Amino acid sequence: MVKVAILGYGVVGSGVAEVIDKNSSPIQAKSKASIVVKYILDIRDFPGDVYEDKIIKDFSIIESDPEVSIVVETIGGKGVAYDFTKRAILAGKNVVTSNKELVAEHGVELLRLAQERNLNYLFEASVGGGIPIIRPLTQCLSANHFNEISGILNGTTNYILTKMIKEKMSFEDALAEAQEKGYAEKDPTADVEGLDACRKICILADLAYGKHISPSQVYTEGITKITRLDVDCAGKLDCVIKLIGRAVKKDEQVQIIVAPHLVSTESPLSNVEDVFNGIMVDGDAIGNVMFYGRGAGRLPTASAVVADVIDIVKHMGAEKFVNSWDEAPEGYVSDYREMEYSFMVRATSDSLKENLNDVFPGCEIISDSEGAFITPYLKTGDVLAKLEKLTSKSFKIHNAIRILKNN
Amino acid sequence: MVKVAILGYGVVGSGVAEVIDKNSSPIQAKSKASIVVKYILDIRDFPGDVYEDKIIKDFSIIESDPEVSIVVETIGGKGVAYDFTKRAILAGKNVVTSNKELVAEHGVELLRLAQERNLNYLFEASVGGGIPIIRPLTQCLSANHFNEISGILNGTTNYILTKMIKEKMSFEDALAEAQEKGYAEKDPTADVEGLDACRKICILADLAYGKHISPSQVYTEGITKITRLDVDCAGKLDCVIKLIGRAVKKDEQVQIIVAPHLVSTESPLSNVEDVFNGIMVDGDAIGNVMFYGRGAGRLPTASAVVADVIDIVKHMGAEKFVNSWDEAPEGYVSDYREMEYSFMVRATSDSLKENLNDVFPGCEIISDSEGAFITPYLKTGDVLAKLEKLTSKSFKIHNAIRILKNN
Repeated sequence: MVKVAILGYGVVGSGVAEVIDKNSSPIQAKSKASIVVKYILDIRDFPGDVYEDKIIKDFSIIESDPEVSIVVETIGGKGVAYDFTKRAILAGKNVVTSNKELVAEHGVELLRLAQERNLNYLFEASVGGGIPIIRPLTQCLSANHFNEISGILNGTTNYILTKMIKEKMSFEDALAEAQEKGYAEKDPTADVEGLDACRKICILADLAYGKHISPSQVYTEGITKITRLDVDCAGKLDCVIKLIGRAVKKDEQVQIIVAPHLVSTESPLSNVEDVFNGIMVDGDAIGNVMFYGRGAGRLPTASAVVADVIDIVKHMGAEKFVNSWDEAPEGYVSDYREMEYSFMVRATSDSLKENLNDVFPGCEIISDSEGAFITPYLKTGDVLAKLEKLTSKSFKIHNAIRILKNN
Repeated sequence: MVKVAILGYGVVGSGVAEVIDKNSSPIQAKSKASIVVKYILDIRDFPGDVYEDKIIKDFSIIESDPEVSIVVETIGGKGVAYDFTKRAILAGKNVVTSNKELVAEHGVELLRLAQERNLNYLFEASVGGGIPIIRPLTQCLSANHFNEISGILNGTTNYILTKMIKEKMSFEDALAEAQEKGYAEKDPTADVEGLDACRKICILADLAYGKHISPSQVYTEGITKITRLDVDCAGKLDCVIKLIGRAVKKDEQVQIIVAPHLVSTESPLSNVEDVFNGIMVDGDAIGNVMFYGRGAGRLPTASAVVADVIDIVKHMGAEKFVNSWDEAPEGYVSDYREMEYSFMVRATSDSLKENLNDVFPGCEIISDSEGAFITPYLKTGDVLAKLEKLTSKSFKIHNAIRILKNN
C-alpha cells in the first residue's frame, strides 16, 4: 500500500482525492498497488467533509512520517509550495505537482535535488491541465529534434477570444462572462496578460531543448488590446486570433514568445475553442503533432496528477530518469526583435496607400476602410522600425498582430 | 552500447535505421546509452546501400546473437513476422513493432510470452503512425475510466474523403489521385474497406478496456459507397463525412464499429484532413482529449518505433509493466445492431413526406430534391428494420450514414 499526502485542499487537491477514491480499481490495475491518501494539508477547516479526519495543518507531520512516499503539491505559487516541495524531497519523498509557476522558476533546482536522491519530481499537470503533453514530448517523441512548439496554453484567454470571434462580443463583455462562469479570476491579470501561458511555454521549451528559460526572459504580450475590429479583419484573411506561446530552435538559440497571433482556419489550432488547449509540436521525424483537451479544471488536472502518482508507484525502487534541464548559457534566449513575422496592421492615415508604399512597398492592403494591411515577412525589429516611420508620417497605428506561419 | 536488429528493410525499416543514425545525439541523451543497428534482415539485396554490410538473410543469426537485445519488426502481416517475433522473444529479446495486423490478432499471446520473460513487446507505431497514443492512453490517462474512443485512424481514406469534400472530386478520382501520390496501394481494399482502421480500433479498445477484440468481431464498413451527393447533404447539416473507428464501453460490454460517420464541423475531428489522423479519447476525469498528427509515413512511423526502442533501453533490467490484455468472455463485443445512432438517409420515393411520416413520424427532412432525411436516435437494428419497411413502400434507399454524436 502506497500512502500519499496532498498539500492544499483546493480545487485541484480535492479533485486528486476524489479521483484516487473513485477510480481505485483502474489505478490498482495499472500501478499493481493500492494507493491511499493519508494526509491532506490545509490551513482551513472543512467540517463535515468526507476527508475531514485526514486534514492536518502541520507540514512536519508529513515530513517526518516514513509511511508517506509521495507528496502531491497543489498549493500553487512559489512561496510555501517551494519550501514544502524542497523539504519533502530532502525527507526522501517523491513529489507530484500541478504548479507551473514553481516548475518554471525553480525546476532546475528541484529536479536536481530529486535526481540526486533517486526520487521523482513530476509535473504533467503543470502544462495543458489533463492533456498528456510532457510525457509524450519527452518519451514518445524522444527520437526527434524539435523544430518548434506552438500552443494555445491558456483556457481563460481562449474562452474570451472564442466569444469575441463567434458571438461578436467585446473583450470587456467576454471577460465579464468568463469571470461569471468561474473561468477567469477576479484579478484576471495572470491570464489576460499572458503570464500563465508564458510559464507553460517555458516549461515546454525547457524540456524540448534541455536548458532553462525563465519567464522573465520571454517577450509576453496579452490579449487586452485585441478589439472586435482586429477579429473581423483577421476573419477576412480566413484567420482567427489566438493567444499563442511559441518556442523555436534556431541553431544554439531559442526564440520564444507569448503574443496574440493570427491562425489560419486551415490549422487544427484554429478549431481549439472555449477553454480547450491545443499544443502543436513540430519534430524532424514526426512532423506536426497536436495534443488537444481541457487545459484546466478540477478533474482533468487531477487526472494528470494521479497519472504521475501511478507512474511513481510503478517505478518504485527503480532508477529514475527524471526529465531535467540545465542552466542556460548567456545569450541562449534570442531577442524577440530577431523573430521573423508578417504582421497584420490596422492604422488610420489620410492617404493610406501612397504613404504605405514608401515604407512597405507592394504590401497587401486587406481593407481600405479599416486601414488594415499585411507587412512583408521580416524581423520583428525591422517591422517595428517601419511602423515607427509610418507614425512619423502621421499614421495612427491601432494594432499590429503577428501571423502564425502555416507549416 | 545497445545493439538492435531490424527485420524488413522497407519503408518503415529504412526509416528506423535513418532516425537511429541521424538523431543519435538526442537518442543518447534520452536513453543514456548509444544505440546501434547491428543487422538488417531482408530477402532482397541492396547493392550500394549505406547499410549494405549489415544486411543479412538468415534470421537465426539474429536469434542466436546474444549481443542483440532489441529486435525491430517492420515486416508486416502475420506470416513470417509472427514466427520471427515469437522466436525473438523466446530467445530473450525485446521486440518493437509497427505491425498492427499482428498486434490486433496475436497481441494477447505475444504480450504474455514477453511478460513471462520480463521482456517488452512494444507497438506505439501500430496505431496512428508517429502520433503518441498508446503510451498516453495507458500511462498519462491511467487514472481514467474510458467512456469512448473515436478516431480517424486511416490516412488513405481520410485523404480521399478530404478531396471529395474540398475539391468536389468523385470517390473514384480521389482514389486514383491517392494511388498516384503513393498514399493508396494498387489494391486499396485494406484501406477503403476499413480493415486497417478496424485493426487499429481493436488495439485501442484492447488497451483501454483490457480484453481482446478480434478484428473479425467488428462490424466494418468502408467508404466505397460514399458519393458526392452524400458529402453535399452532410455539408447542409454542417457536417463532414469521416471514416471513424469507434469503441464505447457499455457496462460489461464493448460496442465497436468502423464506418463512415457524419462529424459536425464543431468537432476537432472535422478539421483532421488529408493523410492526418486524429484520435479522440473520452475519459471520466479528463473529458475529451484529442491526439493529432501524421498517421503513417516513413519517418513519423520510424519516430514512434525508435521511441519504443529508447524506452526499452531506459528500463533495461527493471521489471516491465507491459500493457497487456486478456482473452474476452463470450458476448463481450455487443451486436452492432444494439448501437444507437441517428442516420442521415438518402432515398428516392414518389411521395417522400407522406410515406416517411408513417415509418419515422416527425423526422427531419434535409432536402426534398435529394430525398435526404435524418432518422431519430435509435438502435441501429431498429433503424435498419424501418428502412426495410420503407423499401417495401417502394422507397429506393441510396445510403444511410451514421451521425457521430457531439460530446
